[in-house]
Parts: sequence; structure tokens; C-alpha cells
Amino acid sequence: ISVDALKPSDTFPRRHNSATPDEQAQMANYCGFDNLNTLIDSTVPKSIRLDSMKFSGIFDEGLTESQMIEHMSDLASKNKVFKSFIGMGYYNTHVPPVILRNIMENPAWYTQYTPYQAEISQGRLESLLNYQTVITDLTGLPMSNASLLDEGTAAAEAMAMCNNILKGKKKTFVIASNCHPQTIDVCKTRADGFDLKVVTVDIKDVDYSSGDVCGVLVQYPGTEGEVLDYGEFVKNAHANGVKVVMATDLLALTMLKPPGEFGADIVVGSGQRFGVPMGYGGPHAAFLATSQEYKRMMPGRIIGVSVDSSGKQALRMAMQTREQHIRRDKATSNICTAQALLANMTAMYAVYHGPEGLKSIAQRVHGLAGVFALGLKKLGTAQVQDLPFFDTVKVTCSDATAIFDVAAKKEINLRLVDSNTITVAFDETTTLDDVDKLFEVFASGKPVQFTAESLAPEFNNAIPSSLTRESPYLTHPIFNMYHTEHELLRYIHKLQNKDLSLCHSMIPLGSCTMKLNATTEMMPVTWPSFTNMHPFAPVEQAQGYQEMFTNLGELLCTITGFDSFSLQPNAGAAGEYAGLMVIRAYHMSRGDHHRNVCIIPVSAHGTNPASAAMCGMKIVAVGTDAKGNINIEELRNAAEANKDNLAALMVTYPSTHGVYEEGIDEICNIIHENGGQVYMDGANMNAQVGLTSPGFIGADVCHLNLHKTFCIPHGGGGPGMGPIGVKQHLAPFLPSHPVIPTGGIPEPEQTSPLGTISAAPWGSALILPISYTYIAMMGSGGLTDASKIAILNANYMAKRLESHYPVLFRGVNGTVAHEFIIDLRGFKNTAGIEPEDVAKRLMDYGFHGPTMSWPVPGTLMIEPTESESKAELDRFCDALISIREEISQIEKGNADPNNNVLKGAPHPPSLLMADTWKKPYSREYAAFPAPWLRSSKFWPTTGRVDNVYGDRNLVCTLQPANEEQAAAAVSA
Amino acid sequence: ISVDALKPSDTFPRRHNSATPDEQAQMANYCGFDNLNTLIDSTVPKSIRLDSMKFSGIFDEGLTESQMIEHMSDLASKNKVFKSFIGMGYYNTHVPPVILRNIMENPAWYTQYTPYQAEISQGRLESLLNYQTVITDLTGLPMSNASLLDEGTAAAEAMAMCNNILKGKKKTFVIASNCHPQTIDVCKTRADGFDLKVVTVDIKDVDYSSGDVCGVLVQYPGTEGEVLDYGEFVKNAHANGVKVVMATDLLALTMLKPPGEFGADIVVGSGQRFGVPMGYGGPHAAFLATSQEYKRMMPGRIIGVSVDSSGKQALRMAMQTREQHIRRDKATSNICTAQALLANMTAMYAVYHGPEGLKSIAQRVHGLAGVFALGLKKLGTAQVQDLPFFDTVKVTCSDATAIFDVAAKKEINLRLVDSNTITVAFDETTTLDDVDKLFEVFASGKPVQFTAESLAPEFNNAIPSSLTRESPYLTHPIFNMYHTEHELLRYIHKLQNKDLSLCHSMIPLGSCTMKLNATTEMMPVTWPSFTNMHPFAPVEQAQGYQEMFTNLGELLCTITGFDSFSLQPNAGAAGEYAGLMVIRAYHMSRGDHHRNVCIIPVSAHGTNPASAAMCGMKIVAVGTDAKGNINIEELRNAAEANKDNLAALMVTYPSTHGVYEEGIDEICNIIHENGGQVYMDGANMNAQVGLTSPGFIGADVCHLNLHKTFCIPHGGGGPGMGPIGVKQHLAPFLPSHPVIPTGGIPEPEQTSPLGTISAAPWGSALILPISYTYIAMMGSGGLTDASKIAILNANYMAKRLESHYPVLFRGVNGTVAHEFIIDLRGFKNTAGIEPEDVAKRLMDYGFHGPTMSWPVPGTLMIEPTESESKAELDRFCDALISIREEISQIEKGNADPNNNVLKGAPHPPSLLMADTWKKPYSREYAAFPAPWLRSSKFWPTTGRVDNVYGDRNLVCTLQPANEEQAAAAVSA
Repeated sequence: ISVDALKPSDTFPRRHNSATPDEQAQMANYCGFDNLNTLIDSTVPKSIRLDSMKFSGIFDEGLTESQMIEHMSDLASKNKVFKSFIGMGYYNTHVPPVILRNIMENPAWYTQYTPYQAEISQGRLESLLNYQTVITDLTGLPMSNASLLDEGTAAAEAMAMCNNILKGKKKTFVIASNCHPQTIDVCKTRADGFDLKVVTVDIKDVDYSSGDVCGVLVQYPGTEGEVLDYGEFVKNAHANGVKVVMATDLLALTMLKPPGEFGADIVVGSGQRFGVPMGYGGPHAAFLATSQEYKRMMPGRIIGVSVDSSGKQALRMAMQTREQHIRRDKATSNICTAQALLANMTAMYAVYHGPEGLKSIAQRVHGLAGVFALGLKKLGTAQVQDLPFFDTVKVTCSDATAIFDVAAKKEINLRLVDSNTITVAFDETTTLDDVDKLFEVFASGKPVQFTAESLAPEFNNAIPSSLTRESPYLTHPIFNMYHTEHELLRYIHKLQNKDLSLCHSMIPLGSCTMKLNATTEMMPVTWPSFTNMHPFAPVEQAQGYQEMFTNLGELLCTITGFDSFSLQPNAGAAGEYAGLMVIRAYHMSRGDHHRNVCIIPVSAHGTNPASAAMCGMKIVAVGTDAKGNINIEELRNAAEANKDNLAALMVTYPSTHGVYEEGIDEICNIIHENGGQVYMDGANMNAQVGLTSPGFIGADVCHLNLHKTFCIPHGGGGPGMGPIGVKQHLAPFLPSHPVIPTGGIPEPEQTSPLGTISAAPWGSALILPISYTYIAMMGSGGLTDASKIAILNANYMAKRLESHYPVLFRGVNGTVAHEFIIDLRGFKNTAGIEPEDVAKRLMDYGFHGPTMSWPVPGTLMIEPTESESKAELDRFCDALISIREEISQIEKGNADPNNNVLKGAPHPPSLLMADTWKKPYSREYAAFPAPWLRSSKFWPTTGRVDNVYGDRNLVCTLQPANEEQAAAAVSA
Repeated sequence: ISVDALKPSDTFPRRHNSATPDEQAQMANYCGFDNLNTLIDSTVPKSIRLDSMKFSGIFDEGLTESQMIEHMSDLASKNKVFKSFIGMGYYNTHVPPVILRNIMENPAWYTQYTPYQAEISQGRLESLLNYQTVITDLTGLPMSNASLLDEGTAAAEAMAMCNNILKGKKKTFVIASNCHPQTIDVCKTRADGFDLKVVTVDIKDVDYSSGDVCGVLVQYPGTEGEVLDYGEFVKNAHANGVKVVMATDLLALTMLKPPGEFGADIVVGSGQRFGVPMGYGGPHAAFLATSQEYKRMMPGRIIGVSVDSSGKQALRMAMQTREQHIRRDKATSNICTAQALLANMTAMYAVYHGPEGLKSIAQRVHGLAGVFALGLKKLGTAQVQDLPFFDTVKVTCSDATAIFDVAAKKEINLRLVDSNTITVAFDETTTLDDVDKLFEVFASGKPVQFTAESLAPEFNNAIPSSLTRESPYLTHPIFNMYHTEHELLRYIHKLQNKDLSLCHSMIPLGSCTMKLNATTEMMPVTWPSFTNMHPFAPVEQAQGYQEMFTNLGELLCTITGFDSFSLQPNAGAAGEYAGLMVIRAYHMSRGDHHRNVCIIPVSAHGTNPASAAMCGMKIVAVGTDAKGNINIEELRNAAEANKDNLAALMVTYPSTHGVYEEGIDEICNIIHENGGQVYMDGANMNAQVGLTSPGFIGADVCHLNLHKTFCIPHGGGGPGMGPIGVKQHLAPFLPSHPVIPTGGIPEPEQTSPLGTISAAPWGSALILPISYTYIAMMGSGGLTDASKIAILNANYMAKRLESHYPVLFRGVNGTVAHEFIIDLRGFKNTAGIEPEDVAKRLMDYGFHGPTMSWPVPGTLMIEPTESESKAELDRFCDALISIREEISQIEKGNADPNNNVLKGAPHPPSLLMADTWKKPYSREYAAFPAPWLRSSKFWPTTGRVDNVYGDRNLVCTLQPANEEQAAAAVSA
């Protein structure tokens, strides 16, 4: 018997890469090639083709699924999870198991992407509207977006808003020193790009006399726990024309006077402690709320209420015109993928506990902190800060380090502020026993004559009535109806059943790479030794994470041809921004402060120009030729014209047109010759892995979208992760962190980090195991096959569709890369049909549409990925071909251009079963246009949503109860 | 601040018990009582009311959800999982993660019950049909049922079939000694009841000359691994009119000539090694296949193909007329709840691997065993049995115990057959390294000059061509289309979306207690330290399980008022049988062999008489009075008439009519006075916990349905667990086990066990954590409240419905227990409406119907349980009241008795959207008869299924591909 036959059988690549060897040959022949490799050889330009990609050790051949679980369990055992009292924006929390299993561990919630197609996304749209209502109710400001990346970057976005509100005329932003250190550092890095000056000062010494201050940021409660009355402070700022930004804590706001009632202009913070694990730094949903006045300047996605074609309430993304994919460099921010899955968990936590439940948790946390403070006073071994607090007690003592070490021996992590100061932050998981243990720690040997329980009656409240919240919150029935596990289980499943996901069918969104999110990759994400680690825990307690970072850094360097990786940027857009900031720091280090010109092709993703604008770069656009490739001459001219000030080129490869441009290496040379650096957008890495690499092509830095190429699920609109790889010369500038120093992996000899990009040292560390296990299970061969099959699948679909829809761009040998664009512009005149009509009709066939009208208006961009079977590709092509037939009925005059099966799409059951049917086409044709739909069909739940109405009548929070909910609430 | 306010906030009872304190008062008043307690006091008879129930230690107050997870992690850490080579019917297997997460950890697959309502169960019905096809294809016999409890009881059911086939005329059953020891013991226990004689003999010495042999059981491959050619053996048996039963192994049958091709009459075995964890004994799906000739004598559920009202293919349970709930004591077996969830996992494993995948796993396992045997021969330290084998190698050596101990030091478990014999069983998870480790173990100090890898080329095959399988299997497209994770994920979700579950709405099946299956209770079930434990591992390796058993035993004794518990019976019906066999053993021990009369009320559950028949008891039925209570005089007469031969009374309390009979304690006295023992059926324990108890009432033994009262999910038709509690005098007789001795918990002083009931010592041990965590988190107060609220919810619904549907039986004070019966018999004449019509119409309202026509024909029995909110109870009542209105339209002549919205129900989308609508009622009224359906609705996927057609045209395996699948298969 062969040795191979005796190798473990639970190998992974055949479960991820769809096409079997026979299918590969069959599909390659269909495209006119002998086999898959000849197709690849004529698609990927020789000049940039890698002959092979090899990993070190066990990773090259790849681990089987069970070996991977064993390896991850071994890493998990190296994480020592101490009981954390560190706080600083990260708190232990009880993730309600019904939310853990039915959202965080449920592919029907985590495999969708951003709710572009509202009619098949009403479930998560309602949950995100719940999230926006939690934020507006608790902060006391009327408008909230649907989540940002973390508290630090949310504060930086608020700073940018202040700058924009004052039209860039005031160039100083004041930050009170009572903000979390990571927030201060992230704002400083970001300010650099806007040439804003950040002044960090004690809140008492805030001074607007320079007249150049656009905004001020304060923390409420402060990073060391104090709860200050900001009434006067805000009045004074407003008197000086200064906008007030407050970073706050959702749990505290169930007991404290909300920032809105102080008059704050913008409120930011993290929703982590509402049922989302700390996960060594993320992912968590951060929030930003503001007044009606500044709503159009808010960054990120915003969910709004509108109506569908039958006038029924329907939700959708509002005010998209201000977002990066439309306003590009004028966009308010480069936010694209945010933290939708985590916002949904935060919202469901509030739904499950309701207002009383949240308040009782807050009172308990506050009570434990109060009893601790009381006990410390009785012990007399340290001084307790004599200011109101919510959950964090500031203690000054002679030798703080000694106390810190005694605590560590009891596996307790305190926050060592300085040699005389410790803060102790209490949270939902703290118990009375924990408080007793803390008394022992602080008693430094003295016997403790009391217990936390015995002190309880002596403590009432450390919050003055002036700062005690009076206003009600979370009064809407949704927060008062689902407080048993059955009720929440059914609410979660009711919403789940409204959303199409990868559990139903392929989602071929161009440049989104919606590939398989395998279960083995997702399992470690909810293991306690990964979820319960505080990002600022001493590194030696997190050796499992650290070993994984080291391995992942090396693997990503091999894949990209780079020398060092930073895992800190926690979204694709954050990675782009970080990449440009590294280039900027590099030029600065060489005295080239003037190098601020950034060449960007017009076809680049909207986040590119938005990111460049955030780095204060002057954008020079270059066009594309008829074949959709970068116009090299135009680029050469632009480079030479700006050779003294050229900072960088932002390029996507293969191009956003789905074509391997032949001249990419030449383009890199041109930029280098003119003093610029090449930044490569990693969006299309799925067409490079194993075949070529950014480093090999000539790029200096690139960001990867781990939530595209490396399997982190899209989560309904996040989380994502955007680590950046750099060549040696840029490695020293990779970002560090004020609390836990970090930098490039592998570590460069010397470092001069550009500052901090994300609030946590390694971004959303909890979801890195997903990409790590994917790479480790695929091995170098499996990953290379994935790229080949992704290209094969795209070419097979292009071939099947070309006689029905013109394929807009092809490579020199007539092939496309891993995605391709079909041109629908012709149908506008011949049939009055727009890409949106085709996308809505695809819903009736059970499919999510491809990317619409980007990068070329009037087109659809299709990216199948390697994890869709030939049967599924054929089914999608059959649907598009059948729709083409429906279009030709309009062209031939057999169907009314204004009242046909496309314009009427999608067709929800309520419409199809209405007693009266006035459409000029049959119900069955609208409902079951393809054979597979008879055996099982995903039903869109609304008619087409009216975007214009939604933006005109902007409502971005839950409406006062409609009758059904009101009745239910009365009886609940 | 109060100490209570500082207690942990993630308490569980409020998440499980639905009614809030306000709602409890509100609903009690609605029923005419001041508060909940006065309602309970007037419902539960004073004479049997417990004043309180107290648990010991931490369990009384109950643990919070996070404390429970911590406690279970601590228990898990006490389980030492060695690498098992024990085999004997239990093998390590790689549970494909996509099946683990999307079925075993998915409430949309595990919260339904048996697919009684076919139109909202087509998903699991298709998967169970796939399971039946796997079994028929691999065994080579044409008919299979949808799963039995375990291999041991499946063999016993086959023995009973042989007895029935020979019409009870032949009273000897021969078992070859090459069967697994637990199978032999279970058959012996079972034979006792049928007064069959079991003769265990070496296969060479089998002798039918007595002419009294009805059947013979052999194992293929044998328990020590040998693969024998049964060709002649079967011919010889048939020549003597003896039926041949073969116990076999599914993985072996991908390489070995199938039993059907030897002419075997019945084939049994376990599907465990097809992707279901060993779980210290279960749950696993066992199988039984037979010929067309004996199909009507098969035990258990059988899925058949039929058509729906529109002629479309639809699946349903076939041949129900032979089952226990209809044929009662004449039933072929007492099987009710089986192992549906595990059968679905086994089927999906076969779908995911397909015929080639399964064969390559088998060849690998066989190859590793072959290389091991080869290596041992080279070592020369032991003799290898010189017979063909599949996965198990028999080794004889001078000191087997020494080798066993050396292996244990390397955390390897071998099977010690006797002091000179060891068998080593290889499985899907064995690796080449494992084989090398085994060489070291057997080398007893000698250096090993080779590696498993180096020997591979020297081994080919240990199976003679005469026994090598030639016939194809699993050729249907379903086994050849879903081999990537995306494809299987979508197939699982396609089926999932066809089945209504507790994720959609309450399922008020009377006497099924469909309460919450909380996530915290389910999480430990898939932790490796619980899943990967072999049932015959030395007990000291399973101290986590053992500590849990001890705690659970004590808790159940406190709840039931009994002195000792056996956790071995692995279903409700198995518990009933075990309870009666304990009574039988008790009488025997006192010389009362003649005591074989069993008094059973006519209203008892069908499994009662079926179980009594299995114990060879003579059943004496007693009637019920007008109020539905047991006719005490009739019972007294029956008891006195049979006082010399009275064995037992089987009684359910509260009665199956949903009423607390006042005279239950008197009934127990009557039985005891006449020498009988009282067996109490635990089906209605949800109305007893904390309020009364079987022990307190006077019962001697009772079985509990952990899958009803104690939260093990119903799994779509299993798994269940039926442990039995006994008073002191019956404790010695509790079943033990031939391989791992067991018995009552707490252990009685002396033991004389009645034999073995289930194949594994502690039944389906893996799902015991579910009931353990439920009890431990609820605490004594929470459990008592649960019973009170279950009774409150039932009375509230009865009160709301009574003016629309007559409530058949009420207690002395006009209240009902935890369930109640509504009488629909009147509608037959006034509107031609049957209970089935109401159940099908309820589907259009998004609900699963209550229990139909049992215990009283023409009625519906409703059991809400304590975990349904008032809002959900109101919604279900509103649906029934709306249907009552629809019935009155027929009564008033406004609707045609043969063509109305009830007779036409359920209405699937395909019908509602048909171009032509010929019904005399509107589409919208059929589709959306209630307001809540507009915001979200679960759609039945077929019209009403034709049961008669299905039984007449019996098809119980997958049909040759229909076009859609054939086309897909061609392209796959």
C-alpha cells in the first residue's frame, strides 16, 4: 500500500478548492486551453511569474483539519488568562451563550457582506438599527452610525469632523490627558496627516486663547476612573467656537448623565463590554454619535428607514453619497468594512438585558468598585482618589510595582499607571471573592478584618445626584420583549431568515473575494484562552498569540515577497492609510517633507483616494487606456512632472478591471526612478498568491484584506483586518503602541515607528487565527491551486456569459484574471434596463448580485473565488442568461420597458400571493424563473427599497412602536 | 448596596422560566386565582404535596451560566483522553467540522421532535432517507429503518424479529461467541422477557439439531477482528429454517462482501464511526436492515416516499400502523424516540465523503492495521492471528497485561481480551506515528529496526478476493455532489430551512415537554474531553464523567424521592423496559416467578404495553371514569383478582389526561397490598419536580425522560435518555455491564444486577451534561418555579381557549396540570373537521400542531412548558381561536365542508403563487391569516402529504436521480 494512502484523510484543500481535477481540465478546455496550467501561463505575465512559493517546516505541505485543531489547542494552552482589572476601554463581559452560538458561531450571520442589496439584508439592517438606537439612547445624541473600527480611530474620525466643521480653518485639536493613552496616540498619528496640531494637556489647563482650536476631546469617565461634571467645560468650549468630543463608556451611561445632556457635539467609544469578548484587542464595534446638524459629516455606514415598492417599511444604508466609494478623496473618511457582526452582538446584548438588566449590571459593577474603595480606606495601606467614579478606582501608594507583582502572583492583572499609582477597573464578571482577593493584595501582609460582602451595606453610591442619569433609555419594545432565551433565539432566527448568505448561494461581489469561511478556521475564535485575553496583558501571558503572530508574519512575508509585516491595521482601509503613512515617514526620515504627491489611477477603489487625502497627500489621477489598463505614458508624465514631490503610486494588481496588466513592473520602475514609493492595494491578492507577489513585482508596501483573500468572514459588513507588508527599508517605520510596544514581524534591526494606527497593538487579534489556520491547512500547494482555480472559475464564467453579455476587459491572450466585468450599458437604451434591475432580478433566482457600477458605471463585476463548484458557477450563469432572455423580451417589445419582470424585481411572497395581481407577467414566472427554485428558494422579504425617499426622510433609529410591537410590549 | 445586588448577574432561571413575576400574577388572576401559589395549591393534591425540595451544596441555589461553564471545564479536565485502540464497536472518527457546527451545534437541527407533521419536516425526512439508503447500499439488504438506540439493542430487536417470524414457535436463539460481549449480554437480558433461550457458542460448534432455533447472530468482522466467509454458514442455517442476523461495521462494508450477498436475513450495527463522537458510550445511530419480506416486522421509525396534494414527491413516516403508539402491546417493539440527530450526522458524513472518500478511509485504516501486523511479525515478540481482518489485529503473547500497562504509560488504550490475548483496532484518526509507538510497546525493549512508513510497500491487502466487495454503493447523486465545504454547508441549510423548530415558535406537543434547550447546556457536549472518551476506557481515565454521574445521581434521587439511579437506559422506552425488568428481577429474587400480571390504564402511552409485552407480562387493562381518572374500583378488583400473580402497575402521573388524580396514593397502596410493585412513567415529571415526587407518592421505580423534563433536545426524533430511579429494595437489581461493571448511583450495599439493558455502561453519557447543567443552574427554587409556571401556562391557555374549544378533563378544583386536552370531536359532524385539519391549518399560522388523537381520539393535547412567554402563549391561542372562527364559517354554511381553508391546509408558496387559483377562499387569507405573519413567516414546503399512497407504494430509499439531481450529478 502506498505511503500516501496511509497519510491522514481529513485534508483541507479539496474542501476549500472546489474544482476537482477532472472539472479543472473540463473547464480549461471549455475556455480553449489544454489544461489549467496553460490557461494560467497565458494569463499571468511571464515577467512577474514566480516559479514557486515554499513555506518553512510543517506549513509547506499543510496541516489536516484535525492536526490544525491540535496545533491551535497547543497555542491556546500557552495563553495564560489572568483575571483582568486593567480596564482602559477593555472589560471582561459575559457573552450571552445564545448570542455566542447563534451569531458569533453562526455562518448564517457571519458570511454575508455589507448590506448593499437591502431587500435580502433586512435582518442585519434591523439589528444595526437597534445598535444605532442603543448608541443614541445612551449617549443622548440623536444620530449614530452603524459602527467604527475601535475607540481610538473613532476619536480620530471625530477630530477630522471638527476639522471639517471648521472648514479646516482651525489647525489645533486639544486632547485632555484623562483620555486613554492609545486614543491620544492614534489621534496624534491621524492629526499628522491633516497637518493638525494635537495639544495634550490636563483638563484644568485647557486654553483656547490661540483661537486656532477646532475641537477638544475629553474622556467620561476618565482613563483613571474619575467622573467629572463637564457642564461648564462644554459651555466654555462652545463660547470659544470649539467643538466638544466626549469618549465615553456605554455601561457607565446607564447610571451617568449622558454626554448629550452636557451639550457634547460628538460622542465616541467602544461597545466591547456589551457582550463582545476582549479578544486581545478586537474585533469590537466602536461608536460615533452626533447631532442632526453634523449628520452628513459622519464617517462609516448609516442605516436608515425607508419604504419598499408596496409602501411597507424597509431598511437600507442611508446617505451613501457621502461615503468613500462615491465621494472618493472628498469622502468624510476612508471607512468601508467596519464591525457589523460585533455591532449586532452589542445590540443583541442590549435587547437581551433591556434597560433594567443593563442598569442592574452597572449598579453591581459600581457597587463592587465602591466596596473595594471602602475596604481600601479601612485597610489604610493606600490612598483612594476622592473623586466620583463609576467602575475604576484610582489608588496611590508608596510602591505600586510591588503591589502589581503581588497581584500577578495571584493571576490578577492591575493597571500600573506609574510607580505610585494603580487603577483597578471592575466589570460584569467581577465577583465578591475577587474583591476579597484584592483586599489581600493591597493589605501587603496585614490581616483583613472584613469581607467585601460585609462592607456592602456601608456603600451606597459614589455618583453625585448632579451626575446621576434621570432620562429614560431603551424604551422601545424591542429592548423589552426578548428577555428569555427562547424569545431571543427566535428574534435572532427571525432576522437571520431575512438575510441571504453564503449558506444559500455564491455571492460573486467583484473585489470582495467572498470565499469559504471554513468551520475549522472559525472554531478557535471562540475558545476562552483566545477570547478572554486583555490587549494590555503582559506579553509573557500571551505566548500562544505571540507564537501565532510570529508564524503568521513569516508566512505572509513569503506570500507577499516582503520582509516584515505589521498586524495592527484592523480593516482594509486602515491598512491603506497605514501603508501611505509608512511611505510618508520614510520620506520624512530622508528629509523629503515635500514629497506629498500621490498618483492614483481613476479606476482605484474609493478607499485609495480617501486614504491618500487622510495623509495630506495631493492626489494626481492618471487615466486608463481603451483596454482598461493604466495609461503608462500618462503615468510616466505625471511621475516626471512631480519627480521632486512624488511620494507614492497607489496601484491595485491585477487591476480593478480584472486584468493582469503587462506593464506593472515597468510602472514600478517609473515611480522608483522619480523618487516615489509603490503602494500596492491587496484587494486582488486572490489572483497573486503563489503565482506572483507584490514584493516580486516591485511594490514597496502593500496591505492585505484578511477578510477577502485569507478567509476572515465578511460578518455582514465587518470585521476585517488589513495588515501591511513592507520591504526592508520601510520596516523601521511600522507602527508601535504606547502601552504595549510592537512593530514589524519579523522584527527589523532598528525601529522608528510612525506612531499608532489602531487602539490595540495587534489590531483585531482574535480573528487572526482564521487566516493563520487557512494558510497553514492549505500549504503552499493548496494556496497556489486556489489562485489558479479562482482564475479558472472567472474565465469559465466569462466564457459562458460572453455570448450574452459583453465582457469589458480581457488580458493580452483573451483571458481575465480572478474577476471580470460584464457591460450592461447597452441595455439602457435598448430596454431601459440598469445594472440595479439585473441585481434585483437575480434575487428572485436566489442570488446576491455582483458589484454594481464600479469601477465602471453601468457594469457588473463578477468574482466567483476558488471555493464555488462548477455546478454553482453554472447555476449563476444560467440565472444571468435567463435574465438576458428576459431583457431581450423587452428589446423585442414583448414586454413593457416600465413594467416588466426586471423593473418589478424583487418579488417578495406578500406581493406574489396578493389577492390581486396586476403585473403584465405571471406570478409563477416572477417567483420561479429557474428549475432549482422549485425544490428550495430563498425569499426576498421586501419589494424594491426606495433609496431616494429614505434619504429625504432620514430616520436612523427605531421608530416608536408600531401596533404589533406595542401590543406585544404591553403584554410582555 | 444590598449583597444580592452584588451577586453575579448571569443567573439562568429567568432565562428559562418565561413568566415574569408580574405576568405570573396577571395570568393567575385571569385563571381566577389570587396568585400563582393559590393556583398550584388547588391543583396539586394536598396528600401528595411536598413542602420543599432541597439540594446539597452549591446546587441548591444554582450556578450562574458562567459558573456552570467553569464547573464543566473543571470536570472536563479530570477526563484523561488516551488514544483508543479498544474498538469493540466504538472507534475514533473525524467529525467533519461543517457537520459538527451546522448540525450537532445547531438549534435549527436539534430542537424539533419526531417528524409527525411531514409538511414542516421535509428537511430531516430527506436526510433520514439518505441514512436509510446508506444502510441498504452498504449492507446489501433493501429495507432499513431510520435508526435504533445502539448495536446491542438493535441485535435484541433482530432476535425478537426472528421470534416473531417463527411465530414464537421456536424458543432458542443462538449467538456466536465472536459477537461483542455487550451485544451478547443485552440479547440475554432481552431474551429473558420473551422466554427465549440464548445459547452462546463458538461459531464452529453452532448446532440446530434441537429444531427449536429461530435465529442465529454472528459478527462480521468478529469482535477479535477476524473476517470469515459466511456463505456456507447462511446456507446451512436456512436449510434448518433458522434466520441469520449479522452484526457488522459500515466502514468495513466499503471493502467487504456485504451481508446481503451472503443471504443474511437481518443486519444490525452502529453508525458511530461515520462522523459521530464516541462520547463515552453514546448517543449514536444504530441500524437494522432486512429483506422486503420482513419489512412490516421492523422496529422503529421508517421514512417513506409519497406525494403531496399537488402530486409532488414528499416524504413522511411510513408503516406507522405497526408502531407502538398504534399497536400498543402487539407492537413489534417499544421504540419511540430513537437517534434521529445522530442518523443525520452519519448520513451527512457519507454525503460529504461519498463512495470513493469512504473507501479511501477504509483502505487507509486497513493499510495501517496491515502494516502493524506485518511489523509485529518482524518483531517476533508476539503472534498475529493468521486470519483475514479489516481494522482489528488479534495478537497472542506471553504476558498481555504487561503490554497493556506499557501502552497505558504512553496514554494508549489496547483491548486486553485475556492474559495472553490483546486486540488492536485501527480507525480514521490513527496515524503512522501511532503505529510506530505501538511497535515500541510490543517490542518490549527490543530496538525496532523499521518504521510503519518503511513497511507500507510490503503490505497490500489482508482480505481474500472471495470476501472483497465488488458491488457498487452510494451511487445516488446526493452522495456525489456535496464534497466541498460550501456545497455541504448549503445542502445542510437547504434542508434546515424546510423544518420548523423551536427557533421559530413553541411546539406544544402534549407529553413531549418541548422546553428550552439552552446553549450553556449544549456547549460541553462538543468539548473534546467529553466527546473522545471510549466507553470501555479504564474508569480512572474518566473521573470527570464519574464525578458528574455521582452528582447527577444524587440530584435525581432528591428530585424523585428515590434511593438510587441507573443512567444506563438510553431512551424513554428503554427506561420503561428496564423499570419493569427490575420489578421482574425483584419478584424472581423472592421466588415469585409467577408474578407476571401488569395492570395498565387504557390511557397509558403506547410504549407502556409494548414494554410490558417485552417483559413477558400479561397485560390487564383498567378503564378510566368519566372524568378521565383511573377507575379505582376497577383497579382494586383487577388487583385483588390477580393478587397472587400481580407483578406491577404501570401508571403515569399526572395522568396522560393532564389531570392530578386525587387517588394516586390510594392506587399505590392497593397495588402494594396485592403484592405488586408500582412503576411510574416519568413522561409527566414536568408537573411534579419540586411539588411532589414519584417516591413520595408511593412508586417503587420510575423512568425519567431527560429529553423532556431535563432539557436534552429532541433532536428531530432522538437522542433521548431514560434513566430509572428506584426505592432501596429494588436498587440491587439495577443493570450492570459485562465490560465495565456499573449499577445504581448511589451504589446500593449489595448488588445482583438483572443483566445489561444498553450496549454502553452509562447509556448515551455524552448528553448527560445537558440535564446536569440544567438542574445545577436552575437550583431547587428554579426547578420548582419551572413546574409551577408550566402548570400556570397550561391553565392560562386552557382558560383562553375554553370558550372556543371544550377542555376535556379538569381536576377537582377546575384546573388542569401542565397539559390539557381540547375536544374536537364535535366538529366532525358540525363541519366535517378532524384534528389533522386543525394541525395542518396551524402550519399556515407558523405553528407545529399539538399531540393529535392521543390519549383520546378526536382531540388535541397541548403542553406549553414553562419556557414559553405569555406573548407566545397568546399568539398560539390567537391562532387556534382564529381557526375556530374558520370552522364556524363551515358550520354556518359560509364555507364548503370539503373545500375550505382547513381542508386545503397547509398552503405552500408554490400553491399560493400558482398562476391559477381555484380555491373558494382568497390566497392572502390562506397565506396570512394572522397579523404577525406579515413581518416574518415560516413556509411549509409541501401541500398535505398523502399517507395512504405512501404506504401502498412503499419506497424507503433514495429514488434513482430525478432530472434536477441527475443533471447536477452529471456536471458534478
